[in-house]
Amino acid sequence: MSVLSALRHPIVAAPMAGGPSTPALVSAVSSAGGLGFLAAGMIDTGRLAADIAEVRAHTDRPFGVNVFLPGSGAVDEAAIRAYADRLAPHAGERGVSLGEPVGGDDGYPDKLAMLLADPVPVVSFVFGLPDRAAVAALRERGTEVWATVTRPDAATAAAELGVDAVVVQGTEAGGHRGGLPDDDDYGLLPMLRLAAAGCDRPLVAAGGVVDGPGVAAVLAAGATAAQLGTAFLRCPEAGSSPMHRAAVASSAPTALTRAYTGKRARGVVNDFLRRHDAAAPAGYPQVLHLTRPLIAAARRDGDASVPNLWAGQAHPLARDLPAAELVAEVSADARHALAAAAERASHWG
Amino acid sequence: MSVLSALRHPIVAAPMAGGPSTPALVSAVSSAGGLGFLAAGMIDTGRLAADIAEVRAHTDRPFGVNVFLPGSGAVDEAAIRAYADRLAPHAGERGVSLGEPVGGDDGYPDKLAMLLADPVPVVSFVFGLPDRAAVAALRERGTEVWATVTRPDAATAAAELGVDAVVVQGTEAGGHRGGLPDDDDYGLLPMLRLAAAGCDRPLVAAGGVVDGPGVAAVLAAGATAAQLGTAFLRCPEAGSSPMHRAAVASSAPTALTRAYTGKRARGVVNDFLRRHDAAAPAGYPQVLHLTRPLIAAARRDGDASVPNLWAGQAHPLARDLPAAELVAEVSADARHALAAAAERASHWG
Repeated sequence: MSVLSALRHPIVAAPMAGGPSTPALVSAVSSAGGLGFLAAGMIDTGRLAADIAEVRAHTDRPFGVNVFLPGSGAVDEAAIRAYADRLAPHAGERGVSLGEPVGGDDGYPDKLAMLLADPVPVVSFVFGLPDRAAVAALRERGTEVWATVTRPDAATAAAELGVDAVVVQGTEAGGHRGGLPDDDDYGLLPMLRLAAAGCDRPLVAAGGVVDGPGVAAVLAAGATAAQLGTAFLRCPEAGSSPMHRAAVASSAPTALTRAYTGKRARGVVNDFLRRHDAAAPAGYPQVLHLTRPLIAAARRDGDASVPNLWAGQAHPLARDLPAAELVAEVSADARHALAAAAERASHWG
Repeated sequence: MSVLSALRHPIVAAPMAGGPSTPALVSAVSSAGGLGFLAAGMIDTGRLAADIAEVRAHTDRPFGVNVFLPGSGAVDEAAIRAYADRLAPHAGERGVSLGEPVGGDDGYPDKLAMLLADPVPVVSFVFGLPDRAAVAALRERGTEVWATVTRPDAATAAAELGVDAVVVQGTEAGGHRGGLPDDDDYGLLPMLRLAAAGCDRPLVAAGGVVDGPGVAAVLAAGATAAQLGTAFLRCPEAGSSPMHRAAVASSAPTALTRAYTGKRARGVVNDFLRRHDAAAPAGYPQVLHLTRPLIAAARRDGDASVPNLWAGQAHPLARDLPAAELVAEVSADARHALAAAAERASHWG
């Protein structure tokens, strides 16, 4: 029986790198009968090993680890220099220097080696598709492999790689686009229907789902589970900053931008996003490393007009509830929404 | 009992101006137990009166008429002249001249007067919200009034105007953005959940829904009905051109663009869209009038690389079926999808 089909609630907590997906959140969701996910992105293997150990200490239920795949390394260095020139005065005003716009693979080989040496129940990938050898090696060790896609043809390609499930991410989603290229704009519902037509793997629906009726919708559209990120950002177990929680609780609009990291990601619109979006070049992780000191300084200053405030489009509906209660309530609300809609449908025709 | 609540199938045929929504399509959908919609945009009142008469001759079931609201008239004339300079050589190559980029109100006052003098069951509006007086006057005559929105605050504003239902259009939708401004990018699912939180009117869900599981999804998310446009473009009753049908049946991607009409609309990507999207100014209907002769000439030449090929993101799933069969099959598939999902949900927890 697969991890997905054994869940008591069809709810996956999206891996949110940069702090929100704490071991406490992951173990709370898994213990409650959903599937918690650690985010391995932007941390080293030592920290990842510690996080995995902490989850295992708090739950004996399955959980997942999400891994960033390395990019090609090709960037337009002149464009990144021009962006650095544009941002330098902001950094100066805060008394910091911009970071070096270096490349890198986020320690991918080491993380993969660690996950092969000490397997976890599920590994999911973002920023493209894993290679066939990695999929096979993980699966041989009993780890289920999930791929993240943002376009229909990638769902088909993922199935052909032999993955166990495909995370279908719509444009509504908060945070980074999980597929390659990063400029697709498929809404979640059409993506689910198109992916289902071209891919025989179970689908996990991600993007803009924060409540029970939203979960009900993606299950009716053919998903096996819904992956919720923003919905958990206000949970006490999450590592979200007070500034981030306030943005999520607001009704401010969101937008996709490369301004913070060089890869398109959706966040609550603030002054930095508005001013620099149009000028921001593609180039991950170079732009991430470039902006990091500036963003960190603004965070220290308590200034929400600069930092990335990742959130999906339905963020105003996220609730301040312990994760286990949230999982149970969203699941119950989804069950009720499906029962009510099925009852109404029985009268058609 | 409202028109919506009396439908035998929770399926509205989206009004598609420019040819596809023929009286034959509208009456076929209404006769089948859905709700057909005539498109009053870009035709004169004489033609609209004839279309209404033809629908009435073929069905005694309710149907709707969709009306374009006039814009503010404010445009950047220099930007439109620059776009005209850019397109002029293309027109010359085809032996035609570009059109005059004139403004206009699409005959809105005359159309409204006609619909007040000879009421129809439902009038829906796009391109903003109608004024309170128009809503009240139509409703006094027994016409139900629907407004189209693309952002959550507009759903709240529409409810406050006293409309009978709100059409919530996601970014997935083919054709023009129905709300103002035209640059929102809410996916359908978050829009439905956010609109439901701020608006007490029945919601009609539009955008990227072409099949039964898609309909099931939006009903589970709280919509009273789904509005499908692209799904009907391949029906024999539709007025879609062979070129348009071929594009819908392809798996080509779509994009939102102002290149054809000066208002953002989603169509299948072709050479014209790719080449001119970034240069196209806002300015509806000026850009529509400008490009019209060029597009008409390309259509006559059988050249699909130039004309607008409006389609929603899930267009590859549209089927070539008579409209009545399509309504019945989509409805049955939606009922089955809801029943199956509700059954699975009964085992959670």
